[in-house]
Amino acid sequence: MRVVVYPGSFDPVTYGHLDIIRRAARLCDRLLVGVLANPRKEPLFTANERAAMLRESIAETNPEVTTVTVETFRGLTVDFARSREAAAIVRGLRAVADFEAERQMAHFNRRLAPEVETIMLVTAVEQAYLSSTLVREIASFGGDVSGMVPALVARRLSVRLRVG
Amino acid sequence: MRVVVYPGSFDPVTYGHLDIIRRAARLCDRLLVGVLANPRKEPLFTANERAAMLRESIAETNPEVTTVTVETFRGLTVDFARSREAAAIVRGLRAVADFEAERQMAHFNRRLAPEVETIMLVTAVEQAYLSSTLVREIASFGGDVSGMVPALVARRLSVRLRVG
Amino acid sequence: MRVVVYPGSFDPVTYGHLDIIRRAARLCDRLLVGVLANPRKEPLFTANERAAMLRESIAETNPEVTTVTVETFRGLTVDFARSREAAAIVRGLRAVADFEAERQMAHFNRRLAPEVETIMLVTAVEQAYLSSTLVREIASFGGDVSGMVPALVARRLSVRLRVG
Amino acid sequence: MRVVVYPGSFDPVTYGHLDIIRRAARLCDRLLVGVLANPRKEPLFTANERAAMLRESIAETNPEVTTVTVETFRGLTVDFARSREAAAIVRGLRAVADFEAERQMAHFNRRLAPEVETIMLVTAVEQAYLSSTLVREIASFGGDVSGMVPALVARRLSVRLRVG
Amino acid sequence: MRVVVYPGSFDPVTYGHLDIIRRAARLCDRLLVGVLANPRKEPLFTANERAAMLRESIAETNPEVTTVTVETFRGLTVDFARSREAAAIVRGLRAVADFEAERQMAHFNRRLAPEVETIMLVTAVEQAYLSSTLVREIASFGGDVSGMVPALVARRLSVRLRVG
Amino acid sequence: MRVVVYPGSFDPVTYGHLDIIRRAARLCDRLLVGVLANPRKEPLFTANERAAMLRESIAETNPEVTTVTVETFRGLTVDFARSREAAAIVRGLRAVADFEAERQMAHFNRRLAPEVETIMLVTAVEQAYLSSTLVREIASFGGDVSGMVPALVARRLSVRLRVG
Repeated sequence: MRVVVYPGSFDPVTYGHLDIIRRAARLCDRLLVGVLANPRKEPLFTANERAAMLRESIAETNPEVTTVTVETFRGLTVDFARSREAAAIVRGLRAVADFEAERQMAHFNRRLAPEVETIMLVTAVEQAYLSSTLVREIASFGGDVSGMVPALVARRLSVRLRVG
Repeated sequence: MRVVVYPGSFDPVTYGHLDIIRRAARLCDRLLVGVLANPRKEPLFTANERAAMLRESIAETNPEVTTVTVETFRGLTVDFARSREAAAIVRGLRAVADFEAERQMAHFNRRLAPEVETIMLVTAVEQAYLSSTLVREIASFGGDVSGMVPALVARRLSVRLRVG
Repeated sequence: MRVVVYPGSFDPVTYGHLDIIRRAARLCDRLLVGVLANPRKEPLFTANERAAMLRESIAETNPEVTTVTVETFRGLTVDFARSREAAAIVRGLRAVADFEAERQMAHFNRRLAPEVETIMLVTAVEQAYLSSTLVREIASFGGDVSGMVPALVARRLSVRLRVG
Repeated sequence: MRVVVYPGSFDPVTYGHLDIIRRAARLCDRLLVGVLANPRKEPLFTANERAAMLRESIAETNPEVTTVTVETFRGLTVDFARSREAAAIVRGLRAVADFEAERQMAHFNRRLAPEVETIMLVTAVEQAYLSSTLVREIASFGGDVSGMVPALVARRLSVRLRVG
Repeated sequence: MRVVVYPGSFDPVTYGHLDIIRRAARLCDRLLVGVLANPRKEPLFTANERAAMLRESIAETNPEVTTVTVETFRGLTVDFARSREAAAIVRGLRAVADFEAERQMAHFNRRLAPEVETIMLVTAVEQAYLSSTLVREIASFGGDVSGMVPALVARRLSVRLRVG
Repeated sequence: MRVVVYPGSFDPVTYGHLDIIRRAARLCDRLLVGVLANPRKEPLFTANERAAMLRESIAETNPEVTTVTVETFRGLTVDFARSREAAAIVRGLRAVADFEAERQMAHFNRRLAPEVETIMLVTAVEQAYLSSTLVREIASFGGDVSGMVPALVARRLSVRLRVG
């Protein structure tokens, strides 16, 4: 696998995402993390802010990984993957609900671009309960999110939510 | 990914397996199909018969694929993958029940051999209802299994089950 | 819907089955309950015994229903349905696990006989925990299965299992 | 089954809906497609627009079907079904998540109107990944939705979303 | 178990909640029903209104239960439970989707407060289809919600929604 | 909760069971671990052997816990719980499949003995992949099961299976 795309909102990046990035990077020549700049959702951080936190977090937690790049994109993931000549899209699975949604998306992507495979990795058990939504919710109450996100992310969450 | 292992019973191989083999082969340098010679189950075909049908079926349906080899093995899949220095084990997912079983197995394998990743591919929608168990059952009633397995497999099933 | 087939093992019939029969009968001109005489399983009661218990139970619990007939059959359900010119096969769903198995079977049947529809009815909440397997297990311990099966079935279970 | 109701938002109608309509129409004397004019959601198309697209799509894809009518309705589906003296409500199931939601609704409807049955049909494998939400999302990015909805729907989506 | 916390939105309380309260109260010395005053959601009733309806409903349906108290709280459930020195948080499960969400939350809570256990009770079959969301939706159409909520709740729903 | 019953086959006990025992013991005055001496299954260890391994494992891993006793029993769990005047049966949940099976059993038990509650605890993430079946399978291949079961159990497995 030369190029693999790992798409997501990453609003913000969690240790769960960083674990998938580390593991997926070992399976391909280049891992392209795609930050969805979806104009229909209202994210907490802009796409550029999310990409910056991803780059810093990867550098901090996986300094040995040099084959990962981060980009923002608009539109359909499968179009992004195709434009980058990716062999596959990688997705992390936590729960059955994830699996069903991802399966639908995999079938859909396959119809649009049969040459782009979708591969799924199971989230590590230690991070199976983690999601960006949960992290935002806890941070909004001033809760402790260390252990869920890198310190640099925790600080920006705290600033953005004007808590702590 | 240099080497990827695709383990299973393949009793017998179906078009669902062959689709996963074709897709997984594109993602790695060498795909090693591992036929589990599990001494505790009573398969319809011996491990060698199952491996032979796999080899012939791959040659017939994916003649362009030259990076796939078929072996039989005993013991734990993760030990087999490790002994072959595989980067990953690949599994095909049809349904939620598959996902849960595979997730447990992936966590287990990861604990035993953290360097061997488990990657999951979603079965094509056309083959989502297919399983070796179903094929054996239909064939045992003399039902038509063409469209589910290659002709060479259908013939051996018919002989083995003394029907048709 | 002129003819609808309701297939199953009915080993033995439960109040859950009888509820599906009563409801399915209202949706068609004739409901044909098909008792699978599967030669590969070892049922507790023979196909004829199971069919007889079904007929007596239907007569006792739904005496007003006159459009239900009971037959035994061998082979694939879809072949049985086709041979009776059935418009549909009806199945009762209790749980997610049922749904997944039935969905696979529906896709399979549709491929073999596109003119035979599969329709699913949700088991009534009062019977959602009921299964023939559970009934046999409880009866084998001498447990009380009234409220799960008609009295005539409970008596035969008790005799067959030599308990009570 | 004299009258069966097929309720939904149909915002917009997809080939998945049209497949259920064709199959359900064969099972009853009259199929009444009910377009929910729910005042609490903000649909992309008005209920009348959605009903018009349904009528035109049915005429185009299933011209031989003459027993299907389309109506808009407000309030509870079960009240609508009752007011039309329907024998059953029909629902299409794609995934486990659908099944659980539909099961809850079926139990609820049954409590309110025991004489109205809920029957479930499994979505064809080719359309299992399809949903109106996905179609709207793809169209909003200017993506290609042919193969998911009839051409007349694709055109109106494009106009409404001011893309393409 | 001295103190157990039963958290929720209770917008409004249903017979499903009251059944869990009655059953959980038997398992502990004191059951503390925690009404989440979540500032990010827009509930139909204020936290104080919801707590008042809970107190009245408990008094009416379970007058013999004297060990249940109702409080409102802000922030994380696990912090609330800890501040009350609760031995456990109790949750009612209806469906698989509930289970997955609750499992994630249980793992999360356990990480934050290992001394607070999460225990799950299965909703009674008669109430498995019930949810506050469904009750609000039906009431908004002027539908009949008796049998789902106590009469005092039904009256306030009707007033709040200006229907009936 | 005065008495709580934790039933199972425990063939053999794993660290997953021991974690549930430790946590359940904190929630009640006395925890009664019930070893099912089911005459219809062929266990690897006799009920008495399994009970002995449980007692030794509890003493070794949770020496501070003095309120746990181990007994063997025959017949239905709910009858056993009732005969011991248990307030509840406790069950450990790993996956969705567990949940559905346990929910059916809980509804069934509730019908037979409404005074006996069923409470569910979620297995710790570290043990979510663990099962006695998996342990037996690995041990039968001579695989390493330390980290899954106490050393005393691993030794007896090795002897019983004549491996290692």
